[in-house]
Amino acid sequence: MGQRYLVGVSGGVDSVALLRGLVGVGYRKLVVCHLNHRLRGRVSAGDAAFVKRLAVELGLEFESGVHDVVRLAKENGQSLETAGRAARHAFFAEVAGRRRCRRMMLAHHADDQAETVLMNLCRGSAGLAGMAAETVLNLPEPVPGGGSRTRGRLPLLLIRPLLAVPKKTLLAAATARGWKFREDASNASADFVRNRVRNEVLPLLEEIFRRDVRPALGRAADWAAGARAFLRDSAAPWTVQEKLPVREVLALSPALRREVLAGWLKARGVPDLSASVVQTAESMLNPADGPVKWNLPGNRFLRRRAGWLWVECVPACGAGPG
Amino acid sequence: MGQRYLVGVSGGVDSVALLRGLVGVGYRKLVVCHLNHRLRGRVSAGDAAFVKRLAVELGLEFESGVHDVVRLAKENGQSLETAGRAARHAFFAEVAGRRRCRRMMLAHHADDQAETVLMNLCRGSAGLAGMAAETVLNLPEPVPGGGSRTRGRLPLLLIRPLLAVPKKTLLAAATARGWKFREDASNASADFVRNRVRNEVLPLLEEIFRRDVRPALGRAADWAAGARAFLRDSAAPWTVQEKLPVREVLALSPALRREVLAGWLKARGVPDLSASVVQTAESMLNPADGPVKWNLPGNRFLRRRAGWLWVECVPACGAGPG
Repeated sequence: MGQRYLVGVSGGVDSVALLRGLVGVGYRKLVVCHLNHRLRGRVSAGDAAFVKRLAVELGLEFESGVHDVVRLAKENGQSLETAGRAARHAFFAEVAGRRRCRRMMLAHHADDQAETVLMNLCRGSAGLAGMAAETVLNLPEPVPGGGSRTRGRLPLLLIRPLLAVPKKTLLAAATARGWKFREDASNASADFVRNRVRNEVLPLLEEIFRRDVRPALGRAADWAAGARAFLRDSAAPWTVQEKLPVREVLALSPALRREVLAGWLKARGVPDLSASVVQTAESMLNPADGPVKWNLPGNRFLRRRAGWLWVECVPACGAGPG
Repeated sequence: MGQRYLVGVSGGVDSVALLRGLVGVGYRKLVVCHLNHRLRGRVSAGDAAFVKRLAVELGLEFESGVHDVVRLAKENGQSLETAGRAARHAFFAEVAGRRRCRRMMLAHHADDQAETVLMNLCRGSAGLAGMAAETVLNLPEPVPGGGSRTRGRLPLLLIRPLLAVPKKTLLAAATARGWKFREDASNASADFVRNRVRNEVLPLLEEIFRRDVRPALGRAADWAAGARAFLRDSAAPWTVQEKLPVREVLALSPALRREVLAGWLKARGVPDLSASVVQTAESMLNPADGPVKWNLPGNRFLRRRAGWLWVECVPACGAGPG
């Protein structure tokens, strides 16, 4: 509590509950950060004024920024979601740099988490994964007064203390304590896919399964995060090796074998690792059927000889042979 | 292919494609099994006649049964889904016993799998899990001619060779080859939750994410099955121990620690293992905070002393102290 934290505050019930909750348990060195996305016209300006008054009331420092996300999206040919994320990251980096503070609390809660789990699952890129309670964001560090110029990377630790708390609990706390917040601020998300998951998919699932399915989604993602960490840790002693012993890797449990191959190829500098690259590497372990040489992305190829598997480069690919 | 298999055939495109596909690649000793659930009135009788003709055409043996699932559900106060499953299992057991065949192929495909993954996830009981390509079903073995009397258990291996094949591939194969099948037979499912997931949830997700989300659901479940098997195998050396060494278990990766505790408690005969029981056992590992004795389900309790954790029974619970 003695440490200083940035706190992202939209003015909606989630972030108001986070901020007042932190103050209530004794946090004092908080910097209230509000980004006006300009998505809601005059209402957006009202949100910003509300958050500023809240910071003053609580005796906290205040930082605000304005990014016209609709204009940015048009200019850069991005979705509102992508432009919104870029705007937030630029704002975070600017504030973190100016305040020399590398820790930020965000108000993501269990309902947000369930939506993220479902979105990741349907997109197929991350498998079953939600947000982590803590993430390090590596932001391009802006040059002070240098406009959009940047220098180096600025690591910012994002902390989500409410990730296991359902939205209804936050709403009940705010109601019980008479905390004011901006209505609907949380629904002004530029993420239309998330809005549809929240407003259409989850209510439909709740109706069909006759229960709130969010806790189950959160638990499944927690299990997957634990299983993923265990697999990664178990694979670590293998991925550092220059050459892999074919027979020993073949004897591993299939899930660990795939984790080892993926981690090892990544550590050998192979870019754009897809499931099919890992699958082909796996097929090369089989001395009877698999090929003994195979092209990899990034001007590399995979070889098997005399019971070993290794990555070779075409000259000038930047890594020596295994 | 020399082995004999029972094959479940409803008459819909999935099971017709499975049966004709198996015959096409050389399987001959197949017993076509059709259960009339009596869910579709005269159409159900037509399905049964169609499947019988198909078996005759292919020169295969044929087994059929009739269970009035609506009546069974009413009599037993069950859902149609539960009554339907019980009827299928009774039919499977009867045929497997009479034919002395312990292997059965089923036509579940990748679309069924995606639905199952979503259903398990939303129900929260199984986490992220689909159907396995092979499952052993332990059925109550009927006494021949003994009505509903049973003797012992009959293990039946269920094999799902199409689990990675999308329904559209099966439909395309049937169309290309002019295979006849009964329209809509596959939609006569007594499982209303599954029907709603198929007809409402998956189309909504496809619209929102602008892609068929089924492959991603299947891949995530495959990953989870592999991770689960690796965790289970890694936990096995611990779960057979009568007493657990607290310090060593505390040092395990969190996911493995929970797997070890769950498997160990189960092996010690603790019934009704829930996540909260495992969580409490985990909290007892902490010498500073945790309690040293805690009541478990099934007249057991968990004790910690001198660096060890073990399960004790109240007298007559059927197991000796650890």
